[in-house]
Amino acid sequence: MTRHAQLFGPDHTFLGIGKCDLDEPATWADSEAVIMGVPFDGGTSYRAGTRFGPRALRGTDYLPHDGRRPHLALRTDGLYELNTRDAGDVDCFNGDIEGMVEKVGDAVTRIAAAGKIPVMLGGDHTIALPDVQGVARHHGWGRVSVIHFDAHADTGNIDFGSLLGHGLPMRRLIESGAVRGDRFVQMGLRGYWPEPETLAWMAEQGMRCYEMSEMGARGLDACLDEVFALATDECEGVFLSVDVDVVDPGMAPGTGTPEPGGMTSRQLLDAVRRICVELPVVGLDIVEVSPDHDHADITAILGNRVVLEALSGIAARRRGLGWDPTRPLLDGLGR
Amino acid sequence: MTRHAQLFGPDHTFLGIGKCDLDEPATWADSEAVIMGVPFDGGTSYRAGTRFGPRALRGTDYLPHDGRRPHLALRTDGLYELNTRDAGDVDCFNGDIEGMVEKVGDAVTRIAAAGKIPVMLGGDHTIALPDVQGVARHHGWGRVSVIHFDAHADTGNIDFGSLLGHGLPMRRLIESGAVRGDRFVQMGLRGYWPEPETLAWMAEQGMRCYEMSEMGARGLDACLDEVFALATDECEGVFLSVDVDVVDPGMAPGTGTPEPGGMTSRQLLDAVRRICVELPVVGLDIVEVSPDHDHADITAILGNRVVLEALSGIAARRRGLGWDPTRPLLDGLGR
Amino acid sequence: MTRHAQLFGPDHTFLGIGKCDLDEPATWADSEAVIMGVPFDGGTSYRAGTRFGPRALRGTDYLPHDGRRPHLALRTDGLYELNTRDAGDVDCFNGDIEGMVEKVGDAVTRIAAAGKIPVMLGGDHTIALPDVQGVARHHGWGRVSVIHFDAHADTGNIDFGSLLGHGLPMRRLIESGAVRGDRFVQMGLRGYWPEPETLAWMAEQGMRCYEMSEMGARGLDACLDEVFALATDECEGVFLSVDVDVVDPGMAPGTGTPEPGGMTSRQLLDAVRRICVELPVVGLDIVEVSPDHDHADITAILGNRVVLEALSGIAARRRGLGWDPTRPLLDGLGR
Amino acid sequence: MTRHAQLFGPDHTFLGIGKCDLDEPATWADSEAVIMGVPFDGGTSYRAGTRFGPRALRGTDYLPHDGRRPHLALRTDGLYELNTRDAGDVDCFNGDIEGMVEKVGDAVTRIAAAGKIPVMLGGDHTIALPDVQGVARHHGWGRVSVIHFDAHADTGNIDFGSLLGHGLPMRRLIESGAVRGDRFVQMGLRGYWPEPETLAWMAEQGMRCYEMSEMGARGLDACLDEVFALATDECEGVFLSVDVDVVDPGMAPGTGTPEPGGMTSRQLLDAVRRICVELPVVGLDIVEVSPDHDHADITAILGNRVVLEALSGIAARRRGLGWDPTRPLLDGLGR
Amino acid sequence: MTRHAQLFGPDHTFLGIGKCDLDEPATWADSEAVIMGVPFDGGTSYRAGTRFGPRALRGTDYLPHDGRRPHLALRTDGLYELNTRDAGDVDCFNGDIEGMVEKVGDAVTRIAAAGKIPVMLGGDHTIALPDVQGVARHHGWGRVSVIHFDAHADTGNIDFGSLLGHGLPMRRLIESGAVRGDRFVQMGLRGYWPEPETLAWMAEQGMRCYEMSEMGARGLDACLDEVFALATDECEGVFLSVDVDVVDPGMAPGTGTPEPGGMTSRQLLDAVRRICVELPVVGLDIVEVSPDHDHADITAILGNRVVLEALSGIAARRRGLGWDPTRPLLDGLGR
Amino acid sequence: MTRHAQLFGPDHTFLGIGKCDLDEPATWADSEAVIMGVPFDGGTSYRAGTRFGPRALRGTDYLPHDGRRPHLALRTDGLYELNTRDAGDVDCFNGDIEGMVEKVGDAVTRIAAAGKIPVMLGGDHTIALPDVQGVARHHGWGRVSVIHFDAHADTGNIDFGSLLGHGLPMRRLIESGAVRGDRFVQMGLRGYWPEPETLAWMAEQGMRCYEMSEMGARGLDACLDEVFALATDECEGVFLSVDVDVVDPGMAPGTGTPEPGGMTSRQLLDAVRRICVELPVVGLDIVEVSPDHDHADITAILGNRVVLEALSGIAARRRGLGWDPTRPLLDGLGR
Repeated sequence: MTRHAQLFGPDHTFLGIGKCDLDEPATWADSEAVIMGVPFDGGTSYRAGTRFGPRALRGTDYLPHDGRRPHLALRTDGLYELNTRDAGDVDCFNGDIEGMVEKVGDAVTRIAAAGKIPVMLGGDHTIALPDVQGVARHHGWGRVSVIHFDAHADTGNIDFGSLLGHGLPMRRLIESGAVRGDRFVQMGLRGYWPEPETLAWMAEQGMRCYEMSEMGARGLDACLDEVFALATDECEGVFLSVDVDVVDPGMAPGTGTPEPGGMTSRQLLDAVRRICVELPVVGLDIVEVSPDHDHADITAILGNRVVLEALSGIAARRRGLGWDPTRPLLDGLGR
Repeated sequence: MTRHAQLFGPDHTFLGIGKCDLDEPATWADSEAVIMGVPFDGGTSYRAGTRFGPRALRGTDYLPHDGRRPHLALRTDGLYELNTRDAGDVDCFNGDIEGMVEKVGDAVTRIAAAGKIPVMLGGDHTIALPDVQGVARHHGWGRVSVIHFDAHADTGNIDFGSLLGHGLPMRRLIESGAVRGDRFVQMGLRGYWPEPETLAWMAEQGMRCYEMSEMGARGLDACLDEVFALATDECEGVFLSVDVDVVDPGMAPGTGTPEPGGMTSRQLLDAVRRICVELPVVGLDIVEVSPDHDHADITAILGNRVVLEALSGIAARRRGLGWDPTRPLLDGLGR
Repeated sequence: MTRHAQLFGPDHTFLGIGKCDLDEPATWADSEAVIMGVPFDGGTSYRAGTRFGPRALRGTDYLPHDGRRPHLALRTDGLYELNTRDAGDVDCFNGDIEGMVEKVGDAVTRIAAAGKIPVMLGGDHTIALPDVQGVARHHGWGRVSVIHFDAHADTGNIDFGSLLGHGLPMRRLIESGAVRGDRFVQMGLRGYWPEPETLAWMAEQGMRCYEMSEMGARGLDACLDEVFALATDECEGVFLSVDVDVVDPGMAPGTGTPEPGGMTSRQLLDAVRRICVELPVVGLDIVEVSPDHDHADITAILGNRVVLEALSGIAARRRGLGWDPTRPLLDGLGR
Repeated sequence: MTRHAQLFGPDHTFLGIGKCDLDEPATWADSEAVIMGVPFDGGTSYRAGTRFGPRALRGTDYLPHDGRRPHLALRTDGLYELNTRDAGDVDCFNGDIEGMVEKVGDAVTRIAAAGKIPVMLGGDHTIALPDVQGVARHHGWGRVSVIHFDAHADTGNIDFGSLLGHGLPMRRLIESGAVRGDRFVQMGLRGYWPEPETLAWMAEQGMRCYEMSEMGARGLDACLDEVFALATDECEGVFLSVDVDVVDPGMAPGTGTPEPGGMTSRQLLDAVRRICVELPVVGLDIVEVSPDHDHADITAILGNRVVLEALSGIAARRRGLGWDPTRPLLDGLGR
Repeated sequence: MTRHAQLFGPDHTFLGIGKCDLDEPATWADSEAVIMGVPFDGGTSYRAGTRFGPRALRGTDYLPHDGRRPHLALRTDGLYELNTRDAGDVDCFNGDIEGMVEKVGDAVTRIAAAGKIPVMLGGDHTIALPDVQGVARHHGWGRVSVIHFDAHADTGNIDFGSLLGHGLPMRRLIESGAVRGDRFVQMGLRGYWPEPETLAWMAEQGMRCYEMSEMGARGLDACLDEVFALATDECEGVFLSVDVDVVDPGMAPGTGTPEPGGMTSRQLLDAVRRICVELPVVGLDIVEVSPDHDHADITAILGNRVVLEALSGIAARRRGLGWDPTRPLLDGLGR
Repeated sequence: MTRHAQLFGPDHTFLGIGKCDLDEPATWADSEAVIMGVPFDGGTSYRAGTRFGPRALRGTDYLPHDGRRPHLALRTDGLYELNTRDAGDVDCFNGDIEGMVEKVGDAVTRIAAAGKIPVMLGGDHTIALPDVQGVARHHGWGRVSVIHFDAHADTGNIDFGSLLGHGLPMRRLIESGAVRGDRFVQMGLRGYWPEPETLAWMAEQGMRCYEMSEMGARGLDACLDEVFALATDECEGVFLSVDVDVVDPGMAPGTGTPEPGGMTSRQLLDAVRRICVELPVVGLDIVEVSPDHDHADITAILGNRVVLEALSGIAARRRGLGWDPTRPLLDGLGR
């Protein structure tokens, strides 16, 4: 079902970590997290290009690609400590969205069923549907909450005549029962979509959505405090879904549906860090990175850092380390 | 005087709204706002390219160009509720700045005289002169205040031997009496221009100018509170003039005279929203978007959102809706 | 089935010509050629982006978009004289290649059945299958020859597990009998694909393929002479399929699978001109223009000129005009 | 009237040659050629940006900017042997095309009147009018022929309501009598402009225009042989006007109105070389280089090489050297 | 040892200030600050391109290059009031890092020895070693503190087998004793480098390092208050070293080793301003600007503004002016 | 001495071929050609960036990276038939050109000594010195001829005070006696460098240099015929050195010292093909590809095709196949 060679370009793993093969469980038996790419943009409603997302997210970094990334502040190395492996790309065809969703669902289900954390590299946001469902199959249907960073709610009903697409997965997820509407949190929304009918549907599901202005007026940490309480109420785990367009397009231009007025890169990294240190994250995806629209790889490396920040935080949580942002960097180091 | 076909490229309206023709008043009789483009960069002192601003501001959006844009947070649709129409471009020649100023003045005057809000898409900032004068002819010479977002004061006296140009319009406006100097507010200034003599002239006129550091030290909302008191004192209406270079060039590179250290996109959108919800805006322009220097259309879509944010706010004000940034997005929706 | 509004961006027609609606035959009854776009890149094997091809091919030109384009050398105006209309985009979804092929086939069939020349703007080369089949349904299954400009043979069998895709349409066409293998001519091939097995299959079909070196060694016109004899032997009409990657990527970078060592732009335009003046062209497509990878719109305008060159040539043929490249431009003009 | 400091950016001369000041004749008394820039794009009908042409043409070269450029094949150094000086930019305002034309005319007239060769760096092609008129005032009204490389005839009548503009100068020139229509030669024309009425006017003037296909079918040198006979018949000197868009936009993208199917860079350089070695060139301009639309400076350096090729050829002619392209490069060198 | 002509491109000074020659002390005897460029990228560990940094830092500004830059808020003109001169580039070869370090050290030493402030334009960060050592030779070995803005600590030991390189200078500096480890402050660190061993070494030296999250949680000004106390304790002067990658790559993409999550441009400019107004700055460098990776010159102009902000602040300090960010811009101006 | 992991980015081999390790001869014992990269730009005199050349040359291709590339026209697969292996990058530091030259010389010597063909991926042209010397050590000092495609002669004496650099290697080679001056052929020269003294030196060595105009006037094949006679006279083997800037910068912009007026991509590929089919090529390098200055990877893939074209030709020569460009592509294939 999967293969190591990347679909669109040369074969390399995420920052040089070891390969594994989903079909050979021994190759990832000792990993706590497994990375897979989904080089797909057939579900996008505007610009394509996210099919090159996995290639860029894996390979964009100025440091040696040696499979090690010690986090400066958290003092953990998520790649190394979690023995993270790269299972390559899901083998999908851009002209067949249904086939893609099925294959991704199978892959995520297998990873989650083995008790590992799937780290899915999009690709467009369509994959959130099989990503979260795959995790929920293992951790409990309706027992996983979702924290979703995005400029867009992605709760549309039908687009281009299809029930699948990058603007629709969150509706499908809630409809399927994989996630309860009132355990679905969205941060960073803004702009002019969706239309009132869809907003009403979202309200009816009990979703909690933070528009940028609310986050600005109340502060990111105050909002996160609220989110954390919600996300852990009657849920066994948290799925973190990060659409890179939650960041302002001025800072992250390499994406397909840019909506001005977003978070800063710093805010996103801080939020991801806190979530992964403080909550039981059971899966994550980073989506909508489109290298064709990027400049000097700044969006790709931001996406790469979202993955590292998350794995570093997960490792810190597993080692029982907390995180205090006011602690001086070198505090307690040295002789 | 005007024509629908755009001067530089294919013919399309602002996000697909209906066309109108200034020469046929029936076509815009039921509109509350009328959009026009001024594809002109003959007044720029450095990079050209803003002649393509109107084309980009009208056409840059990943959503369907269907003439509808429901604002997520304000719950209004400025394009639809104000029955906004697009009157095409003012027919101007880049090698003739005097002719341009005259034609724009005529167009704005006609729109304002009919009680409509002119929404002018630059082009370079030279157009602020005929824009504001056109509005003041209707609402009262010296009875319209100006809130001006810009990195630059645009109060120079002569440039390239000309009294007209994109660095000079604010001086001409105050000299003409169309706007009182002490009802002219500038936000976002920074850098190394103008020189002390011009600053002294500005002080003598009683202008109130907020440099970026003051806005940073005191907070955007505190400054806006001050501005709002000033702008509505002895004035019937407010003209909002937004030079996109008020935003940091790192976030809005598509402009001709980039000055580092500006506002974030988020700050600008929040400010525009608050101004249009709380003040009697009688006209606006968005200028200095230069698509040739943009990347992935991020500056163009920011300019597009300035227009939408303004129209959404105006619609909210007309419907008597306020705006509370701390209110949850979905609050009160659903059954 | 079709709609006028373009799928990805503002609504405009090819250089400002009149709109028509396939569902309202009266709107195109007096047209000799009908333009449609297929904003699809779900069949691409590498870079996406051709979904924006129709938008770029229609809208890229520095001249006024007024529906007129008098050809300097041929002294015809293909847009005007053929009363060419634009029927908008075929409404397709990138994640559903089968649906796209069916819809395009229906559209082309209707245009051809009415005796009009379909001018299809890709999108990726997958559309050649429904394009040529649609024409062959009217002009005779196996009675239409194909002249195919491309760096690639596009005769692959299966890619990404699919029988449809941009590397496969020519095999499907010949297999279907819509075109005889020995009436299928390819010009501009080069590089390292397809593999020997496929080349053997092509030889068995009797295809005639000109690699770049042969065209260089023998001369373009000598090759075209040969092609013209072949293409009109036992065939009622000629379909012209132009993949913009036939031109050297140094001159036409805006495409998805660039293969160095191609034709010059000048050679392609001369060849298209001669073909359309001298042969009974019954349909054409221009594909694989990917604006995301273009620079300063040079590939888009080259594609636009391929359409104009073809329509100008068709108009010249209908008026009985020939073309002599050695005739001075102004010869016979003036009083 | 002139100043050394460049209008748009830092002050530097053409490849580091010495400065001069038109107002101080002693500073250029011993120069045979004088370079001036015209940083103007107010006459363009589409993309702006040529105001940065002079800056780019002067400063784009990877070799040391030391005022020396020995031509490899011609074995002359046009910058050094002609003691070429740089008189800076004509001080013009983009919003005032009439003022620009007057100032450029004055400058060129002064240079030509002193027996020097003006080398004008555009800016847009509007400057050809004052350039050639300035030269004709000295060498004889109607006694200077023009060899004009361009994709476009630039013989329009009125554009944007103006008699001045970059599409019109050649008509104004012929109307003024500065150049006889039958001593005006155009090479490289192509595309869809101007319309038949203008072509008829051109024919009536006796112009000789070479469309790209004629140049391709007959060969560049055969065409040049014809041109040379015409250009020296009853004329004292030749003005060479090179619009960089004569080269294919695939090779020279940095220009405002790109028309596919042009000359190669090699062809243009060979033609300029032969013209300047064989004909009495009395002035030249290189126009329409728009750095904003360039990539990696390839168009700017091509324009720079047009100047060097011309000056090298002029120096060779003055020293009585001919040029035989078949002579081996190192022939006759060494001991 | 030095020369005025720039190594990579045309010769121009920093915004048009006067030239000087280090070898002719009279040419800079009355200057308080001397600018030099180091066009070197041989020490970079990833992308090259900073060799063009000096050219870009000197020449990027939309205002006239006339050697004057009155600071809007501080009301000083650092270029003019300090009589700042430009001594050209240090003549170095990218393939010889040892030679470069020696030449830069000599140049800085001479400037500092004369009591002037060296303002060094990188080039890569390798130059911080000779920059600070040169200053310490005059102001006291171990008596100069360093405030270092950077995403990276640059305290590596060996890279590519070399003790010199852009990731190592701060270790060499502390090892040499030129700067005490406990007077070395770093702001803006983040990411995944260096590894724990190096962090331990840094802690042992007593360095104080502010990771981005600490700066975010505590506020920039609170951190600066702390820094200021440290930097002036037992030190005669402060060296300010600014690596432009301290700013978020979304806002400053033109650099070689971009690390997401950095400061905003506004924050950096405010910090530089406060440092130079309040502390005895004796030298500064701005490094790692790589124009090849920039967009629309936004990073280059940010670097240019860092220099201007610093010189403006130094001038204000020398004139005894303080800076109150809450003071209205025009306060006290006018009659 | 070597390592597999690439210095600047992820680890991948040339189009997916197998790895080998120079230090483990068994890993390449059955290879006829060995590929190595030299990620170095410390010897460049203008733009850097070629350090990323090896990464780009290895990884740029839209086809699957599977280690197979059957040549369409030659019907050979150079990668597969020669069992070509990739030995990774030479481990070098950009700030130490002497160390680089030594390491590359060692590597090439080892490959050549084993009877294999070294295929060196630059990096800048400095490497030609150790490349050719390494080959000459095995095949005979003074017994290897060089065919050198370049815009520049690269025969300078000293640059930046160094005897090593990308403008100097050919002088060093001839001085060392590794290659006889009269067996050194250069094709594609043009422009304004080197100066007459160097040209005289070249003539004295008996070098044969073809300027572009000679190649244009006489035809590429006529020149090659001459070259072939020279190159095989008293020489055992031929080294092919291709600087990508021999191609016109309009078609190959991704390089550091672009000189307009070059060959077309087609001409270069045809020449390389003919050389490798007809002559005993014993080594080759492709240099000066600078991905930072490329657009849409067109220069990188051109460089990649130079390697494939060469290996395909070498394989054809070994199998005794000739090449007739007029033979139809499919001739003799099929049943």
